[in-house]
Amino acid sequence: MTKSRAEMMSGAELEAALRRIGETRYHSLHPFQILLQEGRLNRPQVQAWALNRYYYQANIPVKDSYILARLGTVELRREWRQRILDHDGSETERGGIEKWIALTDGVGLDRDYVMSGRGILAGTRFAVDAYVHFVRDRSLLEAIASSLTELFSPNVIGVRTKGMLAHYDFISQDTLAYFDKRPVQAKRDSDFALNYCLEHADTREKQEAVMDALRFKCQVLWAQLDALYYAYVEPALTPPDAWRPGEAESGGKAP
Amino acid sequence: MTKSRAEMMSGAELEAALRRIGETRYHSLHPFQILLQEGRLNRPQVQAWALNRYYYQANIPVKDSYILARLGTVELRREWRQRILDHDGSETERGGIEKWIALTDGVGLDRDYVMSGRGILAGTRFAVDAYVHFVRDRSLLEAIASSLTELFSPNVIGVRTKGMLAHYDFISQDTLAYFDKRPVQAKRDSDFALNYCLEHADTREKQEAVMDALRFKCQVLWAQLDALYYAYVEPALTPPDAWRPGEAESGGKAP
Repeated sequence: MTKSRAEMMSGAELEAALRRIGETRYHSLHPFQILLQEGRLNRPQVQAWALNRYYYQANIPVKDSYILARLGTVELRREWRQRILDHDGSETERGGIEKWIALTDGVGLDRDYVMSGRGILAGTRFAVDAYVHFVRDRSLLEAIASSLTELFSPNVIGVRTKGMLAHYDFISQDTLAYFDKRPVQAKRDSDFALNYCLEHADTREKQEAVMDALRFKCQVLWAQLDALYYAYVEPALTPPDAWRPGEAESGGKAP
Repeated sequence: MTKSRAEMMSGAELEAALRRIGETRYHSLHPFQILLQEGRLNRPQVQAWALNRYYYQANIPVKDSYILARLGTVELRREWRQRILDHDGSETERGGIEKWIALTDGVGLDRDYVMSGRGILAGTRFAVDAYVHFVRDRSLLEAIASSLTELFSPNVIGVRTKGMLAHYDFISQDTLAYFDKRPVQAKRDSDFALNYCLEHADTREKQEAVMDALRFKCQVLWAQLDALYYAYVEPALTPPDAWRPGEAESGGKAP
């Protein structure tokens, strides 16, 4: 940035600045993510990832409901509610949360245990709750901007899915069904959110707030992988009360 | 516990159960704390600890203000406000926050940088904010119970102070002045909070809530040390935007 903070960026400049934030901070760059997609984790480590990320997935419709409550027009709510439908599903179509449960089933974790949230890392809970609180308490513009990490997800999902299928014999295409529709959904959602931010960030201060919201959200995702790496990879000092390998195996219970 | 969940515990049983939570979960047992007090950290690692814990210290009067707002009687507020006086100090007496700044000064960190909160780990921010939100949003009984970690701090402070003075040539008695009064204050405060909880937890459900609040608070403290260990000890994968050794040295600026 050569522009002073006082000067407005053009829409193109703001978009470029947002993309640069993703290039250095999106969790696709996290060491845990690299290990995951390169097949360098063992089954318990993949279980820990699936277990902890369930808590994140389960809270997505919560944070989207807070946004829905504040959008203020029928048109905007119609647009945004699709995210909730995608995650919560319907009687005829499985939602993202149910598909994530298929993933935790697939890696052999007990479904009731996963859904209870017991055994997740405090680091996961604090990060995810911070995201929900941010969306509830900050300006609507910042709340929407915090969803912009989806700008960076479509490419990453392909790499991860391919890597996981190639390297882990306990992972099947069906187990990873969650990711099938995400690239298209994420593209649609992030196009909308980006346009909203470009339109409504009409002062330099608001543009900075949009960038800070994206940085914050990158931290929410990154910190979850920090906690997993610490507890289950190295130094593998699993905190008290957190899930331990061998616990909550589904045995014959899961489908 | 041989009692079923439905049965009330006696006051003595609840107190014993609370002390058992501390015996297995208080952060005095955390590997980072052990390294710190045994002199096995280097100066940047101690700086990282002091920097991050400043954010926790700075938020103590915030959470205590939320409790103060909800206590409901002059007598209870008179009791609880002492905590805020202790941390915020007065014109004639340095408070805990100012003394913590003396510690970050002492280890050579730039004071403005420390107070800005820039460079702290996301894991620190999320854990501390989770504590403030817990105190604001949960029942008053749970908010008060979450302070009960102070039951376990007096002994630990002595061990840590002695260890740090013995092992680190960049730490002086004056640098650690924060800890001088804490054992007496913590004893007074935790006696009050414990009695409040024993008196007001008049159903088994409330007794369980008190225990859960203490477990939660133990996680708040523990997770902060997890984040420090991960970022600065092993695997030392410092997250983007977090403080790095050599940054924000006070040079000639601090007293």
